[in-house]
Amino acid sequence: MVDILHRVGIKSSTEEVYKALTTREGLAGWWTTNTQGDGKVGGVLQFRFSAGGVEIGGFDMKVLELDSARRVLWQVVDGPAEWIGNKISFELKQSGDQAIVLFKHQGWKEPVEFMHHCSTKWAIYLMSLKSLVESGTGSPNPNDPHISGDGPD
Amino acid sequence: MVDILHRVGIKSSTEEVYKALTTREGLAGWWTTNTQGDGKVGGVLQFRFSAGGVEIGGFDMKVLELDSARRVLWQVVDGPAEWIGNKISFELKQSGDQAIVLFKHQGWKEPVEFMHHCSTKWAIYLMSLKSLVESGTGSPNPNDPHISGDGPD
Repeated sequence: MVDILHRVGIKSSTEEVYKALTTREGLAGWWTTNTQGDGKVGGVLQFRFSAGGVEIGGFDMKVLELDSARRVLWQVVDGPAEWIGNKISFELKQSGDQAIVLFKHQGWKEPVEFMHHCSTKWAIYLMSLKSLVESGTGSPNPNDPHISGDGPD
Repeated sequence: MVDILHRVGIKSSTEEVYKALTTREGLAGWWTTNTQGDGKVGGVLQFRFSAGGVEIGGFDMKVLELDSARRVLWQVVDGPAEWIGNKISFELKQSGDQAIVLFKHQGWKEPVEFMHHCSTKWAIYLMSLKSLVESGTGSPNPNDPHISGDGPD
């Protein structure tokens, strides 16, 4: 079992970060502008990504848990084969004037090359989340930095 | 066993990336400006970090393997307790006009919060490596983005 783990500190309250993780407007502000669906527990959120004006795929996430300002848990119900069934969680805690985000993407069967890519990409999106909450402006897809030489992302 | 994994594509040759991973000037251009020591196999490189003009610690890495333009392997011989004995590798391969870097930081005993932090931070430094090789300018410490709310880094 191999997991993708990340941590960022955001100069804000956990309530503000929680909003950015649980509202369509918030999610569209840091992950991908093309965010649709139902963010309530049991609902499914659709995240779609594009490059050069062309949609290149995305993920459908079922919202499994929402613990106000403490934890958000999704399960991947559609997307790349390696992601199906994976769980993605954001644990939040306040530390002084900072909201600490502990991120986990669990359920990878093998540490494939695509997992390496997703790990780097998640870090970049979490920095976008930090920027959104701290300054009001994130870098969601399609405005995210490209990290793959040989692909659109 | 839990590992930190990352992948970036760099518009360059593996030879150029290898240079940035194996020379003091290269390493100082993307990881930390305060890089000292001996980068040959069996030598030890000293990486030191600072924030607000104050040194906050660092890592000593023994160079275990240098496989020209294909692989660089270090072992941590001094630094934070969680890092001691860990292995850090950069695998390089050419894919068209891109050098692909597969990064691994292996040897963590537990997925502690500090590991989450280091995972995010490595992604940011690898983006700095990409920027250095592609544009000539990286963002090594102390010019790296801060990601921790409650610490200097």
